[in-house]
This record gives sequence, structure tokens and C-alpha cells, in this order.
Amino acid sequence: MNISVIKADNGVNVEALLGARAALTEAPEAAHFKWRATCDWIRGTHSRTTVQGFYGLGAEQSRNKTFRYDVDHPELFAAEDNGATPVEYVLVALASCLTAGIASVAQNRNIQLRSVKAAVEAGMDMQGILGIDSEVRNGFDGIKVTFVIDADATHDELAALVAQSQRRSAVFDIITNPTNVAVEVA
Amino acid sequence: MNISVIKADNGVNVEALLGARAALTEAPEAAHFKWRATCDWIRGTHSRTTVQGFYGLGAEQSRNKTFRYDVDHPELFAAEDNGATPVEYVLVALASCLTAGIASVAQNRNIQLRSVKAAVEAGMDMQGILGIDSEVRNGFDGIKVTFVIDADATHDELAALVAQSQRRSAVFDIITNPTNVAVEVA
Repeated sequence: MNISVIKADNGVNVEALLGARAALTEAPEAAHFKWRATCDWIRGTHSRTTVQGFYGLGAEQSRNKTFRYDVDHPELFAAEDNGATPVEYVLVALASCLTAGIASVAQNRNIQLRSVKAAVEAGMDMQGILGIDSEVRNGFDGIKVTFVIDADATHDELAALVAQSQRRSAVFDIITNPTNVAVEVA
Repeated sequence: MNISVIKADNGVNVEALLGARAALTEAPEAAHFKWRATCDWIRGTHSRTTVQGFYGLGAEQSRNKTFRYDVDHPELFAAEDNGATPVEYVLVALASCLTAGIASVAQNRNIQLRSVKAAVEAGMDMQGILGIDSEVRNGFDGIKVTFVIDADATHDELAALVAQSQRRSAVFDIITNPTNVAVEVA
């Protein structure tokens, strides 16, 4: 008798990722990546950042397309609102990183996802960036992410899924831990 | 005799920003903002995040447009490359935040900018997110930002401009200092 096993399909190629993990375990120097972006000031607080190539697996990697992102401040700040603000882009990064992780972990755990929605909210006291109160930080005073997931899994399984995604998330790490940033003028 | 003073015009309404600073100094509770984003999983590592409203000046603020950002992993990771990766979005945020700050500070210092370009590069050891080595962090091991600025200013003035932008940058703070992130499943 043939027992057919229903396999979840979340569109993540887990076999390829596990293969990459095995390959990079053997050749850890290939795991050193460099991510890049180039930003051009347009006018006022409006800029356009281009994302194309990166370095990884020991070689320059070029995409067959170029991504461009307009960033600006909203009209409330007497700007032209040509794109989301820089801090909103941080929220895009966080939400998408956790969501991609959830899809990948669910695939690996054979959990079929039907829908995943994340609502992100970050508090910020503008007294920081406006230089009103030097005790107030410039960045967020905290971020809350709430996931609503429709999947073939119990609430405990979903909570474990989200926890594992958090544990492996690059952007969650970048936001919750300090990273050194060197800024120079050529 | 009339002495005409040449005023820099970088397209930043500094008067409005100084007015906002004065107003929020009087009413600091209005300075408490909430930035938001909503992320929908599409398939695989592909998601789309929507940015529209935010809360500030004591009220809900709605834009007359909606920004949508596709995020994905590149083909190198067996994904479909429908948008920049989450970590590249962090670089977009950092570059644009520092650039908007440079334009604003230059305006305030009466320095005319002609062009501002930022090249951002961030190292990342993929052994972290792939779970190969638990000693390796998931995020960046460091970020380097290089500005090339064409302006009516000396190199020292430009260096001071960039330093002041860094000092007031929300995203620079978010990346270089820890922020608490609470993640939950509804």
C-alpha cells in the first residue's frame, strides 16, 4: 500500500538552502557577503537609492535587474512625500525579514501557510532628532510586531515558528544589537 | 547700497523645521510619533509591505498616497529576486537618512549642495543566519558609508556637515544602538 505524504508548499526551496548550508560549512570563507547600496540626493529630503550587485560565494554577484527606492519626508515636515521615510524603510526590512523566515521555517517543518500578515508599529520621540532634548534618543523607543497567520498548525506551533524566525533574522539582530557604522567623506 | 546675500537653496524648508522644533519644545507630547508598516507574505521569501499612515502631533496622519515595497531573496538563494533583500532595505534607510540630514544641515548652514552621493557597504557572514556557527551574528559585522559631495564648502565644512547629520540621524542610532523589538502572534 502506498502512503502518500502531503508536503507543504510555501514556495521556499529548502533543499537548496540546506545544500547551501552544507556547502558553506565546508567552505566558510564563501559565506562572507557584502551587501551594497548607492544613494543619490535629489532635492530637499528626497533621495533615490539603487540596489544592484553584491558580493558572495567568493565572487561579485550581479542581478539582471536594478532596484530603486525613493525616500523622503512627509508633507507634515514641509517635505514632498516622494517615498516612505528612512525609519519606515527600517520597518519594511524588519517585517519582510521575519516573514521570509516564517515561510522558510514553515517549509522546513512541513507547515502549509495560507496567509501571513505582520503589523509593525514603532514609537519615536521626535524631540531626539529635532535636538530638543539630548536625553531623548534619535531612533525608535521600541518596536512591536504582531503576526496574524493562517496555516495548518496550532497556535503553539505558530508561536514556535515565529520564535525560530526571530532567532535567525538578520534584521531583527541589526535592530536589537549594536553594529559599528563608519561614515567618511571622500 | 544694497548688499545681496546669496542664500543656499537645497530644497529644505528649514524655517518650517525650526518652527516645528519651537512648537514641540512647548508641547513635547505632540512629539511622540508612531511609525507603521503592514507586511503581506506573497510566496516563498517574497513579501509586500505597505506604508501609509502614521501617528504624530497628537493625531492620526494619513498620506494621500500609499507606498508598497516588494522584498525577496536573490536567485543565488534559490528565490525569485522580486525586490531587494531585507538587509539591503536597511542600507536604503541608512543612506537616505544621512543624506536627508546632510541636505537639512547644509541648508541651515547656508551651504549650497550640488550633488551628494553615498556608497554603502555592509559585511555579513552568512554562517549566522544559516545556523552554521552560533558564534557568528545574524546581522552585519559592520557598515561603511562613503560620501562624495559637490558643494560650495571646504572639506572640513563637509566633514562637519556629515558628522552633524550622523549625530541627528534616526537610522544611524537604530543601527548603532539596541532597540527592543517585541514579536507576537495574534
